[in-house]
Amino acid sequence: MIIYSGTSNPALAEAIVASLGMPLGRCEIVKFPDGETFVKVAGSVRGRDVFVIQSVCGRPNEMLMELLIMIDALRRASAGRITAVLPIYGYARQDRKDQPRVPITAKLVANLLVAAGANRILTMDLHAAQIVGYFDIPVDHLHADPVITDYLSRKHFPAPVVVAPDTGSVKKAYNYSQRFGCGLAIVAKQRKSGSEVEALSLVGDVSGKDVIMIDDLTSTCGTLCAAADFCRKGGAASVHAAVTHSQLTNAGLERLRASAIDELIVTDTVPQPAFAPEDKVVTLSVAKLFGEAIRRIHNNESVNSLFI
Amino acid sequence: MIIYSGTSNPALAEAIVASLGMPLGRCEIVKFPDGETFVKVAGSVRGRDVFVIQSVCGRPNEMLMELLIMIDALRRASAGRITAVLPIYGYARQDRKDQPRVPITAKLVANLLVAAGANRILTMDLHAAQIVGYFDIPVDHLHADPVITDYLSRKHFPAPVVVAPDTGSVKKAYNYSQRFGCGLAIVAKQRKSGSEVEALSLVGDVSGKDVIMIDDLTSTCGTLCAAADFCRKGGAASVHAAVTHSQLTNAGLERLRASAIDELIVTDTVPQPAFAPEDKVVTLSVAKLFGEAIRRIHNNESVNSLFI
Amino acid sequence: MIIYSGTSNPALAEAIVASLGMPLGRCEIVKFPDGETFVKVAGSVRGRDVFVIQSVCGRPNEMLMELLIMIDALRRASAGRITAVLPIYGYARQDRKDQPRVPITAKLVANLLVAAGANRILTMDLHAAQIVGYFDIPVDHLHADPVITDYLSRKHFPAPVVVAPDTGSVKKAYNYSQRFGCGLAIVAKQRKSGSEVEALSLVGDVSGKDVIMIDDLTSTCGTLCAAADFCRKGGAASVHAAVTHSQLTNAGLERLRASAIDELIVTDTVPQPAFAPEDKVVTLSVAKLFGEAIRRIHNNESVNSLFI
Amino acid sequence: MIIYSGTSNPALAEAIVASLGMPLGRCEIVKFPDGETFVKVAGSVRGRDVFVIQSVCGRPNEMLMELLIMIDALRRASAGRITAVLPIYGYARQDRKDQPRVPITAKLVANLLVAAGANRILTMDLHAAQIVGYFDIPVDHLHADPVITDYLSRKHFPAPVVVAPDTGSVKKAYNYSQRFGCGLAIVAKQRKSGSEVEALSLVGDVSGKDVIMIDDLTSTCGTLCAAADFCRKGGAASVHAAVTHSQLTNAGLERLRASAIDELIVTDTVPQPAFAPEDKVVTLSVAKLFGEAIRRIHNNESVNSLFI
Amino acid sequence: MIIYSGTSNPALAEAIVASLGMPLGRCEIVKFPDGETFVKVAGSVRGRDVFVIQSVCGRPNEMLMELLIMIDALRRASAGRITAVLPIYGYARQDRKDQPRVPITAKLVANLLVAAGANRILTMDLHAAQIVGYFDIPVDHLHADPVITDYLSRKHFPAPVVVAPDTGSVKKAYNYSQRFGCGLAIVAKQRKSGSEVEALSLVGDVSGKDVIMIDDLTSTCGTLCAAADFCRKGGAASVHAAVTHSQLTNAGLERLRASAIDELIVTDTVPQPAFAPEDKVVTLSVAKLFGEAIRRIHNNESVNSLFI
Amino acid sequence: MIIYSGTSNPALAEAIVASLGMPLGRCEIVKFPDGETFVKVAGSVRGRDVFVIQSVCGRPNEMLMELLIMIDALRRASAGRITAVLPIYGYARQDRKDQPRVPITAKLVANLLVAAGANRILTMDLHAAQIVGYFDIPVDHLHADPVITDYLSRKHFPAPVVVAPDTGSVKKAYNYSQRFGCGLAIVAKQRKSGSEVEALSLVGDVSGKDVIMIDDLTSTCGTLCAAADFCRKGGAASVHAAVTHSQLTNAGLERLRASAIDELIVTDTVPQPAFAPEDKVVTLSVAKLFGEAIRRIHNNESVNSLFI
Repeated sequence: MIIYSGTSNPALAEAIVASLGMPLGRCEIVKFPDGETFVKVAGSVRGRDVFVIQSVCGRPNEMLMELLIMIDALRRASAGRITAVLPIYGYARQDRKDQPRVPITAKLVANLLVAAGANRILTMDLHAAQIVGYFDIPVDHLHADPVITDYLSRKHFPAPVVVAPDTGSVKKAYNYSQRFGCGLAIVAKQRKSGSEVEALSLVGDVSGKDVIMIDDLTSTCGTLCAAADFCRKGGAASVHAAVTHSQLTNAGLERLRASAIDELIVTDTVPQPAFAPEDKVVTLSVAKLFGEAIRRIHNNESVNSLFI
Repeated sequence: MIIYSGTSNPALAEAIVASLGMPLGRCEIVKFPDGETFVKVAGSVRGRDVFVIQSVCGRPNEMLMELLIMIDALRRASAGRITAVLPIYGYARQDRKDQPRVPITAKLVANLLVAAGANRILTMDLHAAQIVGYFDIPVDHLHADPVITDYLSRKHFPAPVVVAPDTGSVKKAYNYSQRFGCGLAIVAKQRKSGSEVEALSLVGDVSGKDVIMIDDLTSTCGTLCAAADFCRKGGAASVHAAVTHSQLTNAGLERLRASAIDELIVTDTVPQPAFAPEDKVVTLSVAKLFGEAIRRIHNNESVNSLFI
Repeated sequence: MIIYSGTSNPALAEAIVASLGMPLGRCEIVKFPDGETFVKVAGSVRGRDVFVIQSVCGRPNEMLMELLIMIDALRRASAGRITAVLPIYGYARQDRKDQPRVPITAKLVANLLVAAGANRILTMDLHAAQIVGYFDIPVDHLHADPVITDYLSRKHFPAPVVVAPDTGSVKKAYNYSQRFGCGLAIVAKQRKSGSEVEALSLVGDVSGKDVIMIDDLTSTCGTLCAAADFCRKGGAASVHAAVTHSQLTNAGLERLRASAIDELIVTDTVPQPAFAPEDKVVTLSVAKLFGEAIRRIHNNESVNSLFI
Repeated sequence: MIIYSGTSNPALAEAIVASLGMPLGRCEIVKFPDGETFVKVAGSVRGRDVFVIQSVCGRPNEMLMELLIMIDALRRASAGRITAVLPIYGYARQDRKDQPRVPITAKLVANLLVAAGANRILTMDLHAAQIVGYFDIPVDHLHADPVITDYLSRKHFPAPVVVAPDTGSVKKAYNYSQRFGCGLAIVAKQRKSGSEVEALSLVGDVSGKDVIMIDDLTSTCGTLCAAADFCRKGGAASVHAAVTHSQLTNAGLERLRASAIDELIVTDTVPQPAFAPEDKVVTLSVAKLFGEAIRRIHNNESVNSLFI
Repeated sequence: MIIYSGTSNPALAEAIVASLGMPLGRCEIVKFPDGETFVKVAGSVRGRDVFVIQSVCGRPNEMLMELLIMIDALRRASAGRITAVLPIYGYARQDRKDQPRVPITAKLVANLLVAAGANRILTMDLHAAQIVGYFDIPVDHLHADPVITDYLSRKHFPAPVVVAPDTGSVKKAYNYSQRFGCGLAIVAKQRKSGSEVEALSLVGDVSGKDVIMIDDLTSTCGTLCAAADFCRKGGAASVHAAVTHSQLTNAGLERLRASAIDELIVTDTVPQPAFAPEDKVVTLSVAKLFGEAIRRIHNNESVNSLFI
Repeated sequence: MIIYSGTSNPALAEAIVASLGMPLGRCEIVKFPDGETFVKVAGSVRGRDVFVIQSVCGRPNEMLMELLIMIDALRRASAGRITAVLPIYGYARQDRKDQPRVPITAKLVANLLVAAGANRILTMDLHAAQIVGYFDIPVDHLHADPVITDYLSRKHFPAPVVVAPDTGSVKKAYNYSQRFGCGLAIVAKQRKSGSEVEALSLVGDVSGKDVIMIDDLTSTCGTLCAAADFCRKGGAASVHAAVTHSQLTNAGLERLRASAIDELIVTDTVPQPAFAPEDKVVTLSVAKLFGEAIRRIHNNESVNSLFI
């Protein structure tokens, strides 16, 4: 087994291999002056079980191409099996044709990974679970829930309620409400464009409650902040939000600071800066989850039992 | 252009071609004594634009195989283009791995259609819009909304509220609430197995309201009836439910009769019997929608504009 | 190695694993109220050598779809290698275009098995040996001949002659005549439709002989009975017929009882009822042949040498 | 529409285009000193309906590769549709695994044609009709029967009987016997190797009859001559043999001259020399059949109706 | 016919459609805050002949992904035929494994274009003509030679000599020397890494000559400047260099200014800034060549004849 | 591991297995009277690591088809992995479309090998290194350089110069000149057709030097002899030519004898006759290189390190 990392999230990759007590495979990744990426894998991979860790985020097109080029190099170098590890699966939100003549980029990404030569996929908290079906190769789909639930449970909220910040995350919120044994509320809104949201109404009751909001990803923090402010107006005692994949822009961080959110819990599937206390962001690591999943995949052990 | 029909929903197929002012293509479909299906297409299809209508329901495995066999026959007979028309896309609910070691049968169905030789897909109200991405051939995804909305609008409910009967249908419910300009409520439940449901709680307010419940499919009517009864207990003035794909079992029909549902609106994507008034079922036809979509596909006109 | 069974022929599957001294893998196969099949494999199959036994008969479309769904589940569960074991390969007779615009369903079945994810095929007595070439994955093609020949040899017929009941089975009949060191005769007929036959003439001599008729499959018993009656009129002393894949309909059983056939030898590739003596049917088991073939496939031993 | 010809059977290609009143497309086909084939198509083929005629015989490997190279050139030159016309489909006899570890070269040929870029196939009298199913692209399968039957009918044999020269050609012989309204007999033999036969026995009666023997192909004339001699010993009045694809070796021609065969009827799917009267060979042309089939394919007319 | 453009080289795209007297198709291309690209094509493309112009340069990974996403959108929108137009084919230099465990990214790019759904390719001056063979779909490979030769011819150099700046461009240089009817010289060097060169020796004579140097691409201008300086030391009277694909970095422009090169002729396959006279760069447009090629492809006319 | 050989170069195959201390796998390869090739592999190959050695030369179409048929047989016999070993990769020169409407036969060969079922490729000195990218399966590309360099070094030429006999072999020549630490010269010529060359001019100086000419293949020896004669006229002291793949025709051998070439060094990738001293041909063996590469591939060791 050899584990390589692209350049998108070296800290997570290092943490994953550290959890496994092994080093990262060496791999030269350089940019030529014309912007082209060059990859050279060090050391023979013939017949080896190879994992390539690459978070498709930040500059997702760059990071995806880098991953595809690494897979091409490994395939031609006779790797025994290549598992593409995408802690965040970029373009997961573009998973359907909600307008005429738009792509289904999440499926395109699947097609590209397979065309490049990936043999399996390991990823986390896909925007829609149906994306697993975009592949015919095996996909192991991890969830950050154990890490997030563990953190939130230790808060011992007196009057928790789980709030779905929009109608798309109701199912996930409902699952969390079951886990916490508490109620559910929904903020119904409509996404107008990529960065604007328009909050509309609160379905359910949050008055005097400790609001827990759950979503899979955020960048502008617009949906979460609008929902949080709405909850606060509805009398919420506190608002904690948890997001697996957080790619906060500067504007997003500003909005978060100014919002009713008391704490934003994120994971390191996306590289996170060192946040100041006033940022109200807490970063949890999913490295051990990925490390354990990789160990089990390599040993042909069940990965699903990680979650039972 | 020639339009053929399998044996699953001949009434709908006849209504579709009638709306286009053309006859159904003749095609012999027989069962041999050993249970094997035999298909023979009458008349040359060389270079023709062929549509095959088959609702994958009732005995979905039988109907799907019949469709695949028809497509194989048409491909080998040099059809110019083959569009598989699935008014109901069977197995759409099995669209993700929510347990270890289960199939993603909705993707398998996509793979089988493509392996048999389908060039395009025309279908309606998929359980998840992501299923469109299971294909790389073009898919036209119709919605029964215009037909259902038109029918419900003429009811002129004094105090409408749209209720999602479970957390999986919130998005669809929300869209309807926007269309009717009314509120939204959610009945949160957990599906325990294929036929049992356990209603849990009502998020939002339905007291004194005319409840409109929307779902994409039902067979046991369990989810809808439980949600309706819950709404009635919550003070709902009336309950109208609309489901695109209704495959009511006898038990389901019994449950419906005994339930708080005042009216169940269904479409003919699945063949519907002649209902008695006490059945409380109204059948709307989507034949014209399919007819118009087929006409536009044949003429290379936009299909999406059907919904604008 | 794990061996699973679909629902079409559990008795054979049990007999196969019994011959190997191992249990069947557990696998939940249920029908939802809407007719859809649901499959859930119990226990991890990652990296394992998996065999799925399913006779495609009875309700062949149902049974084939069930098999395809099982294969899809196993593939997504990271099975190391999936061998589809089809004791009877349904649709094998639809192996060519003898009329315009008919399918080649035997090839479609091959395409579907490969599209679902099968890695190898194990089957028996295909209607045409060319069907092996419909696959590019390896196919092991067993023959029931050893079992049937062994049974017939112990009859010690005084004056055997092998009769081909129609022109399509002459080659198979000839091989048996070589094995028994006896003569060959042919009943020439023409299949008019799926269930009707029209016997025409006898080529060769059967007078005073013990007729052995060999065919690969029967359901109506029409061809065999007509040929037997013709032989009896031609002076045959006795008529024994052997068919690998027998799916006798009630009408077929009636016809058999009333026919000149003294004994019909069948195998358990298709599930067989408990026959009464007046049914004149003897069932031989091919379980040990399949068991041994599976053992050899798993151990990378030659399967063909089973027949030498 | 443009029709090109490889170098294997220029006379047939010329006759086909002559029957259509059009010239052959120009195409340079040269052999380099190192034995490599070079092809250059003259004149643009962009978007055109292209047919490539190549009999895969004589030096079948050479001729097949030449065909594949022509198809590759046409595909890269943006031909609209490429139909590979194989008057004789080489390797058709290697259509099953009758021994362990042999290829199914007839399927390999199909795979190669598709890999090179053929869009459709037009061929004649395949050794087994199942070979059509080796393709998923459309195949038009012509039969020389109309040409051969027409010739033989004009002989007005007083007492015809159709004889299958081996057990593999019974079905074809039977069909001819139906057409001539006469009886059927079979010479049962076993092919020991590629060029040796061992005749065994005659099933049926040929005494005083005019024997018509039908086969799809011959090269050594061994099977036919042995069967003819056997029939003559059985009292046959005359023996006429008809073979669609005749590739007589010198030894074969010798054997034919010395045999009981009165006349061997062959077609020009394989290039035929100018035979001397003592060769007893008559060549019929299938050029018009191919010409008409090509015309119909180009015009999207039914090809099967050619045979009704 | 509709022509769309990605964002990499809008000026060239506008010039191409202007040369055809038609407008660019409208297509919304936006970047979401998380860096993901979103594409929405305006207006129906069903059954249309669509061209997408995208120079894969500048940020080649971004530009390639943008192109792939556009193709995916067009395919799902039922475009009749999609031609990817890559004025510069990014990663063309990574066309072989000159070291162990490196990718062949030029082939990966081909695989990705095909996986996304491209039906044809139109490109110019590939680093190696063999890249055309990376595709099985048709590729039209244009050359900037007519534009460059025309420009240089009008210089009427008194004593021209064509110089290959390294051993990899000798063939191209030789062709130009034939065209100009002049001699050939070669500067032999060894590329040590992506941006460093080490000039070694001059093969041939340039003393008193007007040096014309030809290459397909440059970014650092290192090879060209080193060769030019070497020629100048060898007594060259003047040095003119022509490069089809020029992506000059700032350092490259500095090096050019300081070099012995009197003029660098480039084309607009890569977007070029407005150069100052001291930059010594002249930009020629290939827009008309591309416009004419697109017109011919659409009309099924020969493209190669553009160069005869 | 089992190693089989086709019939094209048995001496090399024997030498390869001898270098590994193992026997050749037995495999029956016969020609039927109709010219068709029949292959039967002896002994089980299930799950084994199989290598098939076949030089695609002499009669390259025959030899390629033989190789494809062997691969088909091995695939259907369940070989674990099939490596096609092509000491000479036929059709390597047809690697690009230098004229309209020609094939790219080198790519076609790649497509055919993959379609037949090859899992990896091992070859030597491809005409263009880009051909490796024609495959997506792993390719190991050996070079005869160590063998040739070793032989030439022992000559201790007093004044060596490496000469590229045409502009297409400059890169290879340059690499050799680096290895020998000597100068480089080029004979610029233009290939008019497959067998004619027209020498034009000498770039660089060969006067008084020992010319070493390097090329990858020759058959007519035209290019080499013309260049050698030109060098001799330019004052060369001696001329040694080395060619990896030599398929000298009789005319070529005549030309060589009459030429200024003092010695032609060739390898046994192509079977070589026993040359007379006046033939001036020396044959070196690459068997050990291939043997070692096969050993490393089987053991998952690095092959590239063979050349460092």
